[in-house]
Amino acid sequence: MSQTIRIGVCGYGNLGRGVEAEIVKNPDMELAAVFTRRKPAGSLKIKADVPVAHTSSAPEWKDKIDVLILCGGSANDLPAQGPEFAGMFNTVDSFDTHAKIPEYLKAVDEAAKAGGRISVISAGWDPGLFSLMRLYMEAVNPDGKTYTFWGRGVSQGHSEAVRGLDGVLDAIQYTIPDESAAGRVRNGETPGLTVREKHTRLCYVAAEEGADKARIEREIKEMPYYFSDYDTTVTFISLEELRRDHGKLTHGGNVIHTAKTGAGNRHLMEFSLKLDSNPEFTASVLLACARAAYRLFEKGERGARTMFDIPPVLLSRAGVSETVQTLL
Amino acid sequence: MSQTIRIGVCGYGNLGRGVEAEIVKNPDMELAAVFTRRKPAGSLKIKADVPVAHTSSAPEWKDKIDVLILCGGSANDLPAQGPEFAGMFNTVDSFDTHAKIPEYLKAVDEAAKAGGRISVISAGWDPGLFSLMRLYMEAVNPDGKTYTFWGRGVSQGHSEAVRGLDGVLDAIQYTIPDESAAGRVRNGETPGLTVREKHTRLCYVAAEEGADKARIEREIKEMPYYFSDYDTTVTFISLEELRRDHGKLTHGGNVIHTAKTGAGNRHLMEFSLKLDSNPEFTASVLLACARAAYRLFEKGERGARTMFDIPPVLLSRAGVSETVQTLL
Repeated sequence: MSQTIRIGVCGYGNLGRGVEAEIVKNPDMELAAVFTRRKPAGSLKIKADVPVAHTSSAPEWKDKIDVLILCGGSANDLPAQGPEFAGMFNTVDSFDTHAKIPEYLKAVDEAAKAGGRISVISAGWDPGLFSLMRLYMEAVNPDGKTYTFWGRGVSQGHSEAVRGLDGVLDAIQYTIPDESAAGRVRNGETPGLTVREKHTRLCYVAAEEGADKARIEREIKEMPYYFSDYDTTVTFISLEELRRDHGKLTHGGNVIHTAKTGAGNRHLMEFSLKLDSNPEFTASVLLACARAAYRLFEKGERGARTMFDIPPVLLSRAGVSETVQTLL
Repeated sequence: MSQTIRIGVCGYGNLGRGVEAEIVKNPDMELAAVFTRRKPAGSLKIKADVPVAHTSSAPEWKDKIDVLILCGGSANDLPAQGPEFAGMFNTVDSFDTHAKIPEYLKAVDEAAKAGGRISVISAGWDPGLFSLMRLYMEAVNPDGKTYTFWGRGVSQGHSEAVRGLDGVLDAIQYTIPDESAAGRVRNGETPGLTVREKHTRLCYVAAEEGADKARIEREIKEMPYYFSDYDTTVTFISLEELRRDHGKLTHGGNVIHTAKTGAGNRHLMEFSLKLDSNPEFTASVLLACARAAYRLFEKGERGARTMFDIPPVLLSRAGVSETVQTLL
């Protein structure tokens, strides 16, 4: 057992850089290595003074890393990487394809058990902290109703989808919650609201010179799954404006629960996040989960977990007696 | 192992009545008995159709109750009842004398271990859900700052203190959070705020005819610990107005955390409660904790716990796979 928890980072995109930046706030952890699929690995320049290695050499690091944080994407990286690395490392990831979580949990659980390791999957803020809030709220008031609103914030998937259109230089998409819908919920109404009714979408697009903006706008608004079911606004701005005013990966949202008890007494619970940097905040959550994963492993637990399974105190650097004294 | 979790209620004040009212929302639980110190116990009339027994006969119920919810007060009841009953029942309580929690935890832990039982202490919303929020927020962003605001809501302790003054027929005290202080925190400031700076106190008092109102007001405002450190407003109203307009035990509050990551990115987390009935909401939390206590006991765990120690999924009637599918 090492003095500090040795963290490995697999994938050096926004999330990986967030882990690198935020680990310094956790004196019980140290960054041990960064893994990349770039070839040669040495061509990846990182800020921290730690080894950079190719992902394929990760198995050689099995005994030098306590928890590997998987910073790849849910669409293309994690479905394979999750089970693969769970067999040789304790891992934490932010797998967020909601519909596929049960299947992913099963695959990672089997791999982690076979390898004698522990994994925490689908950590972050949604899934993650927002999931926890939904669970606590519904456990406490089982006949209440829970609403999740996302935004105002940047959806990276939707931004990518717009960037992929012909004639688009760059673009960013904000998901905007409907404040009047949130207001109705806070007032104790329990409307049946679809995701579409709770949110609108706003795109800022920098188009190529001479591009057919009417066509781009139409293609965005008609894009199935991403935009066609939403009220979408498209605004064309210059590339300079886009880079200057829309460079931050802000996000956030609200989980709101309303319930009644006794003779019609109303109860409102609400959790909200306003994040300047979605990847840095998500990285912070993953680090707390890495601590918990390490402690669960030390206790002898094996297999895959979600934040639902983690005793909250295991996330905190402070131990039981300090948290009881200062936070309870 | 019984089909449903058999709940006992010890103490039939506001909180005990809340448990009786809210247990029906939890089909996996049933009310088994209510214990009272009234003599004879049968003189206590309750709504539910279950036995009422004297507290001293509780030991005879050891095998007929899965979890006993202690609904007594923190000042006079729980310090003795907690350890006493933890030796013979799985228990849940809402012990909320913050400064004495570590000592209480130790006493209950020893008793529960000696008796081979499990206890969840200091559950509710503060301590309880608010504590959990402070813990999650600080675990995720360890260098941020957390603020707790209470109210607007009725402080039963402060109301009692005013009622005890000569010439007072009845009274109610509202704790009011300073919205401008909360606003500063939400704006990312990290002011050093005392409890006094975050809250004011508002008393509605019905005085006896001919009572010296100036003296009553002075005695309230100068009352050490309760009021002398606060900006306190005293308003005299008729007994009819008091009973008509101020009959509800409303409460609530906010836990707000601000932090920075990376190159000055700001993050705001906030949890808020607005409760029409403090005791009924608290009872709801205690019931979820009773479910967790029962499950921990079935798993073979023994001793005292707080909500910090409880894997969130254990609070929910739904199991792991259902919560993963519907809430994660």
